[in-house]
Amino acid sequence: MKMVKVVGSVTSTVKDSSLEGFKLLFVQSVDLELKGKKEYFIAVDTVGLGEDEIALMVTGSTAKRTEITSGRTVDGTLVAKVERIDLK
Amino acid sequence: MKMVKVVGSVTSTVKDSSLEGFKLLFVQSVDLELKGKKEYFIAVDTVGLGEDEIALMVTGSTAKRTEITSGRTVDGTLVAKVERIDLK
Amino acid sequence: MKMVKVVGSVTSTVKDSSLEGFKLLFVQSVDLELKGKKEYFIAVDTVGLGEDEIALMVTGSTAKRTEITSGRTVDGTLVAKVERIDLK
Amino acid sequence: MKMVKVVGSVTSTVKDSSLEGFKLLFVQSVDLELKGKKEYFIAVDTVGLGEDEIALMVTGSTAKRTEITSGRTVDGTLVAKVERIDLK
Amino acid sequence: MKMVKVVGSVTSTVKDSSLEGFKLLFVQSVDLELKGKKEYFIAVDTVGLGEDEIALMVTGSTAKRTEITSGRTVDGTLVAKVERIDLK
Repeated sequence: MKMVKVVGSVTSTVKDSSLEGFKLLFVQSVDLELKGKKEYFIAVDTVGLGEDEIALMVTGSTAKRTEITSGRTVDGTLVAKVERIDLK
Repeated sequence: MKMVKVVGSVTSTVKDSSLEGFKLLFVQSVDLELKGKKEYFIAVDTVGLGEDEIALMVTGSTAKRTEITSGRTVDGTLVAKVERIDLK
Repeated sequence: MKMVKVVGSVTSTVKDSSLEGFKLLFVQSVDLELKGKKEYFIAVDTVGLGEDEIALMVTGSTAKRTEITSGRTVDGTLVAKVERIDLK
Repeated sequence: MKMVKVVGSVTSTVKDSSLEGFKLLFVQSVDLELKGKKEYFIAVDTVGLGEDEIALMVTGSTAKRTEITSGRTVDGTLVAKVERIDLK
Repeated sequence: MKMVKVVGSVTSTVKDSSLEGFKLLFVQSVDLELKGKKEYFIAVDTVGLGEDEIALMVTGSTAKRTEITSGRTVDGTLVAKVERIDLK
């Protein structure tokens, strides 16, 4: 999984019907110190995230493996809210 | 999904038969401020996009999960037109 | 799909038997102006490409979705010859 | 597989139910000399790794191919502890 | 496929049982002139490669499509030894 930060959201009305009802969040990859990298994705939120929160994103075919995204045209899904990071 | 901008189109007559009938758009990855990055893809349009419009692209096996691209030799599909971006 | 330029070919006799009979082309990713990037792949040609020609390459599991590559150990396939690019 | 170093761990209570019970490790890609690169992932540990240990990580759909991760919403799994590296 | 050079090997005794019996090679991506890039992978050897030899590596789910790696937790497999490269 990639660790990402929620930086915004995206609105789309003209879209594949399988995307109806999803909240599409704008996320940015972060490094060890939670500093943003120049990698951005749009991902479906399945855990109720707010802005600036840190999340784990699954990509590829795995993104369709949650109950909510099963069978949908989705390749990026936020599956966990990160509450604590322990570095050595 | 990746957020991309439509920058052109591509014409091909010599191609895999499963690509017949598709509009192949030339798209460029964009960052938070919609500035173009040096990442380009050719993607199938399923939502009717025009030049300079911003879209969401799914890649990999997910690109074959729309009604239009099912069973086709496609690994990049535009599935949503982005109408609004809200940054924190 | 990625847009690539054919820059050469590769010969291999010691290989997985499912690769028998394929022409393996050496391709390079190109940008908007068809300038080569520092990304190289070896891909199976299914449309009859010559050197310096521009092609569309599918990667990942999609590369096994053409009639020719079905069931083969292939993760990069050239599926279209690009004849014209229209930029805005 | 990618060679990675364990640099920490991540705690999440709000998450997809299929992630329950997994130890989520924070890993960093390493190069030939085991120097850390600026690539970070969160991966499920299936072999009992400690901090600073070197491991092999499988990604994508392969990450769901261990007994422990089968059917789970996981796209990064640590499948081997690296005990020795022999360079030419 | 990616073109890679064999630069070493890796030993692991604590690992997923499906990796038993495989020779795990340390490989490095190479460019057009066979110069090493800063991209390293660990891949299963299915064709009998020696150090410094050039090989083709398949990644992702394709890596499980050889007879030897079928059903194994593998996402990088060397499927061909490169004997000759012809550049234009």
